[in-house]
Amino acid sequence: MDRIVEELIGIVGEANVLTTADDMAPYLTDWRGRYRGHARAVVRPAATAEVSAVLAACHAAAVPVVPQGGNTGLCGGATPSEAGVAVVLSLTRMNRIRSLDPDNNTVGVEAGCTLAALQEAAAAAERLFPLSLASEGSCTIGGNLSTNAGGVQVLRYGNTRELTLGLEVVLPDGRIWDGMRGLRKDNTGYDLKHLFIGAEGTLGVITAAVLKLFPAPRGFATAWAAVSDPAAAVRLLGRLRHHCGDRISAFELVGRPALDLVLKHIPGARDPFSAPTQWAVLIELSDSLEGEGLAETLAGALGAEMEAGLVLDAVVASSLGQAQALWALRENISEAQRIEGVSIKHDVSVPVSRIAEFLERADVSLKSQWPGVRIVAFGHIGDGNLHYNLSRSETDDNASFIARTEDVNRIVHDLVDALGGSISAEHGLGQLKRAEIRRYKSTVEMDMMEAIKNAFDPSRLMNPGKVL
Amino acid sequence: MDRIVEELIGIVGEANVLTTADDMAPYLTDWRGRYRGHARAVVRPAATAEVSAVLAACHAAAVPVVPQGGNTGLCGGATPSEAGVAVVLSLTRMNRIRSLDPDNNTVGVEAGCTLAALQEAAAAAERLFPLSLASEGSCTIGGNLSTNAGGVQVLRYGNTRELTLGLEVVLPDGRIWDGMRGLRKDNTGYDLKHLFIGAEGTLGVITAAVLKLFPAPRGFATAWAAVSDPAAAVRLLGRLRHHCGDRISAFELVGRPALDLVLKHIPGARDPFSAPTQWAVLIELSDSLEGEGLAETLAGALGAEMEAGLVLDAVVASSLGQAQALWALRENISEAQRIEGVSIKHDVSVPVSRIAEFLERADVSLKSQWPGVRIVAFGHIGDGNLHYNLSRSETDDNASFIARTEDVNRIVHDLVDALGGSISAEHGLGQLKRAEIRRYKSTVEMDMMEAIKNAFDPSRLMNPGKVL
Repeated sequence: MDRIVEELIGIVGEANVLTTADDMAPYLTDWRGRYRGHARAVVRPAATAEVSAVLAACHAAAVPVVPQGGNTGLCGGATPSEAGVAVVLSLTRMNRIRSLDPDNNTVGVEAGCTLAALQEAAAAAERLFPLSLASEGSCTIGGNLSTNAGGVQVLRYGNTRELTLGLEVVLPDGRIWDGMRGLRKDNTGYDLKHLFIGAEGTLGVITAAVLKLFPAPRGFATAWAAVSDPAAAVRLLGRLRHHCGDRISAFELVGRPALDLVLKHIPGARDPFSAPTQWAVLIELSDSLEGEGLAETLAGALGAEMEAGLVLDAVVASSLGQAQALWALRENISEAQRIEGVSIKHDVSVPVSRIAEFLERADVSLKSQWPGVRIVAFGHIGDGNLHYNLSRSETDDNASFIARTEDVNRIVHDLVDALGGSISAEHGLGQLKRAEIRRYKSTVEMDMMEAIKNAFDPSRLMNPGKVL
Repeated sequence: MDRIVEELIGIVGEANVLTTADDMAPYLTDWRGRYRGHARAVVRPAATAEVSAVLAACHAAAVPVVPQGGNTGLCGGATPSEAGVAVVLSLTRMNRIRSLDPDNNTVGVEAGCTLAALQEAAAAAERLFPLSLASEGSCTIGGNLSTNAGGVQVLRYGNTRELTLGLEVVLPDGRIWDGMRGLRKDNTGYDLKHLFIGAEGTLGVITAAVLKLFPAPRGFATAWAAVSDPAAAVRLLGRLRHHCGDRISAFELVGRPALDLVLKHIPGARDPFSAPTQWAVLIELSDSLEGEGLAETLAGALGAEMEAGLVLDAVVASSLGQAQALWALRENISEAQRIEGVSIKHDVSVPVSRIAEFLERADVSLKSQWPGVRIVAFGHIGDGNLHYNLSRSETDDNASFIARTEDVNRIVHDLVDALGGSISAEHGLGQLKRAEIRRYKSTVEMDMMEAIKNAFDPSRLMNPGKVL
């Protein structure tokens, strides 16, 4: 038997070291089936000390390690290479909530806890853990941290990074860093936790975290508003922020082609307006104060903007059911696009002030080269984050459409870069954008990243082939 | 002439290289006069390219560099050593606001801009830059970033770190890292900016930053409330967060001895209550929504807590003048304590849930050893941050009181550490706590900090003798 496998069995027991093809299969491909790899073993430790022993053993034997959470990533960051030399380290058995401190508004949680389980634990203590993603039922906190996950409430509460106060990390050689501090203020040297957040497991393994909790909102208001173009959407956001301040918890842009796909493919989906409009925004306000009349506040603000000509039409949900129906129009875009057929996707961000320019220039470039291409643009424009996806024209075929991916990426990513944006806003780099990012980052920045990698993982055993 | 001085003159011109004792004096001592150093020269570049050339020249000549902003730090982090071999690099001529983007809610600003000038620029664009400190008229953004400054609005808006989206940094060898991105979402590799924030100039020189702006609040409510003890203050904070959510922009604890010093030494200071109370909190709500009736909200919440017995007495300011008078009671504590005489000060944090325990246990320990010592405790308890200061007993003399500093620190810092706290919440380490921190950080954490230092500044020329 493989020597390292024997050692792993000695650490976590035979039941938690998977080595057959069938047992390992779920861990060796990403959930979209875009990446497939091989591994010597999948090891499933249940405690920090076991993770430490696993990493020490792999380090001593020079065996690469691929950390994995819920395996819901979009960039292949948790899939091993095809070489079959690595050990996949699954954190899903480390899923305890270690402590919840309501007075400090913090929760200590292990990496393998699912996001949904953490949200529920917070709610049970009358608190909010605001991170919210499509995959929340199966993604894990460790994965959220390692990819600095975003989602729909970033506008108000920030990314995973901003929600984190402390970390516990096992370093590549097995040493444990206990940085589980639940402090809002701690200025005692370099901030080490931010190195590991978003590092996609290339510097060490996050085993636990102390995360912020917030007062549970007790009032919500949801609206769907039509605007003439993205520039009007950005102006509306500015005016609503001025009037409603921090209450804005979501502000999502939806283009007509995106909405049309939802209306075509999702049962029960209904256009909120009788006449089609080109662009719409989904707005949510929330507040922890009781009896706030948030819906009236939102209706009043949108009414004033209709009179001013900025908003073309608007509907404010008058029931939870209506609010959910509006949210479903936004949340089903990806699913509707999947049913429609293949697509070329981008997860990009630009300064909020450049969104309109980005959309306009990208549309012109792409449509002049490929007439008829459908641009399915939507996203979290309060964060400058667009999911800018292309579906083929009616007359095109899948193969020739997909063959253009590189050319399309060049147009979209070059423009993002020219506007001071990011080619990976919330999904990370993984395998997917590892080469692409070198086109846009300066030599100095790549050198700095390499210096950090060499400082923490000089043997380059942690998640090789990802990020760097 | 000193060869490096000649080179510096070649870069920034003779007028901006100070070498005489008189010219250099203001840069060679901290504003409290606790640290004094010597230097070969003070160099005052006006642009990033000049900073780059200065660092490249110093690097080539192996000359240490001490970056300095407004020189208002409290830990000696900007004062050179007595060896007289270093060049002090003053950033105050780099004070431009490069760009302000209202739609993106960001401002690009150079390191030498004062905090007050930045606040004013934001206000002129109907935005808020929320960082607020006693030294805001003279401290600079570069210093705020390098020490991750805190202040009174952290509870709502976060430390300087949380307010930062992008940085421009000159590395120790003179290379320029352009990380001036104004993005809320950017997951393209390691987050380099967080390494330099709070690093006190030991890894490179921050020359500019992109910072977040917020909607300008248009309504305020301020109150002073008496509570029986710190545990009641923490409970009150929890209940107010539940009711008022994000509107709470300040929640400051003031102990009786602190208030007594203000009433004794500050002209015009007046106790809000006729009967003395042991503990009080200063509460501020703010909101960007118009016509919110914030004062009524706050009065209603405090009234309910008085009926419930949690609040003993309360006054809500009914005018701007009254609000300022309440704030003056809090803001003049340091000044009143200075007039009273010498003190032993601590800037510590613990989880909010441990504040009461910290205050109780520290009081018992200190008073049992030194009967009559006066404990002047106050601070930002929403962030778990206490300024825990001691004034001597009436019968004690200054010299024997100050001689106990080490013994007092041991009691206070050991207890902070035992409660999961930080011995430097918002002031940094500088020279003052460089040795002290080694008592409390693990070997692993110190090793990680050393690894980063070696990766970025292997020649150890950047601000030697600080932090590490």
